[in-house]
Amino acid sequence: MSEYKLYGFGQSGHSYKVALMLELLGVDWTLEKIDFFKGETRSDEYRSNVNEMGEAPVLVADGEKMTQSGVILDYLADKHGKFGGQTAAEKREIWRWILYDNHKVSSQVGGYRFMIGIKKMAENDVTKFLKSKYSDALSVMNKHLDGQDFFVANRPTIADFSLCSYLFFADEFGETFEDYPNIQRWLNNIKALKGWQHPYDLMPKAEL
Amino acid sequence: MSEYKLYGFGQSGHSYKVALMLELLGVDWTLEKIDFFKGETRSDEYRSNVNEMGEAPVLVADGEKMTQSGVILDYLADKHGKFGGQTAAEKREIWRWILYDNHKVSSQVGGYRFMIGIKKMAENDVTKFLKSKYSDALSVMNKHLDGQDFFVANRPTIADFSLCSYLFFADEFGETFEDYPNIQRWLNNIKALKGWQHPYDLMPKAEL
Repeated sequence: MSEYKLYGFGQSGHSYKVALMLELLGVDWTLEKIDFFKGETRSDEYRSNVNEMGEAPVLVADGEKMTQSGVILDYLADKHGKFGGQTAAEKREIWRWILYDNHKVSSQVGGYRFMIGIKKMAENDVTKFLKSKYSDALSVMNKHLDGQDFFVANRPTIADFSLCSYLFFADEFGETFEDYPNIQRWLNNIKALKGWQHPYDLMPKAEL
Repeated sequence: MSEYKLYGFGQSGHSYKVALMLELLGVDWTLEKIDFFKGETRSDEYRSNVNEMGEAPVLVADGEKMTQSGVILDYLADKHGKFGGQTAAEKREIWRWILYDNHKVSSQVGGYRFMIGIKKMAENDVTKFLKSKYSDALSVMNKHLDGQDFFVANRPTIADFSLCSYLFFADEFGETFEDYPNIQRWLNNIKALKGWQHPYDLMPKAEL
């Protein structure tokens, strides 16, 4: 049996954060593919047995089901002693960016990409709102990366894996990062890590 | 000199999370009031000297500036040995709800309240989108609170202080919690904690 089982699916940036971490750690893991677009995560059964929050990813580790990608990343970094912070200050800095990602990046980019890239909606007031929000966040990220290869301590950490996730789907929603050269460079730094793979190479897509 | 200085303002639910924690801990703190609506957090000076993310709250503690309410709450819980998790599993459970708050609750409720309660906008496609999102999250919260007085370990923790923040402004955006009786009960449990105060009693409002 694999050490880890991950509930997720190809289109999920949040699942990708964990799948990428598992792959970069080089550990043995299997995917429990979720039929997201058929409503599986929002079903009573899923909420009762897998995750009351009705979300992916969920990681099964040591017989425990863990949810929220930030918690899972932190657990894996601690357990394997890799891609985490080495001091209390570094750990706080990593959490700071994971929270920023949850609050200002993945919510907004993920929502925008869902509407434009998956649902193929035309731009509308909601997509414009989300794009304006995520553009502000990309500017903050771009500035922070000035002269830095990665977000914290200039080495790859779980903060990078959280923040980068939906940005690897950029072609699906027309983001070229032309205005954010440091982000483009940083994404290439992540792609250059041994074991990196694109989301769709790590997890098959759920059917629409 | 106070042990803590908090950059924040009355209308900020994110600042309230930290102000409430400081008050419940009974520690000495002072407020550095931010002129949010005049753009102070988004100014180059603030971004350079206080918080590159352009946000409140910021806590100055032990000569260090800390940002992101979740990080600050975790730091304070650890330092004072109160309102945190007692085991690794409890700590993960607390972080799980803090992340959920950042991802699905405070972003959406905060955005909705800003438009409806502060900017006095009429309902529109964006407010409807935000309300639909936060209503889903309130349902998840309401269900979790079934038979529970607080979110984690049935005692007050920083998870509660994070999740409750914008809900104490509910009268400003017309949310009565009629459909969420467990949330109403839980908010009353928080109000009953020794030292609890409403946001506007802890921090003066920033001018519009």
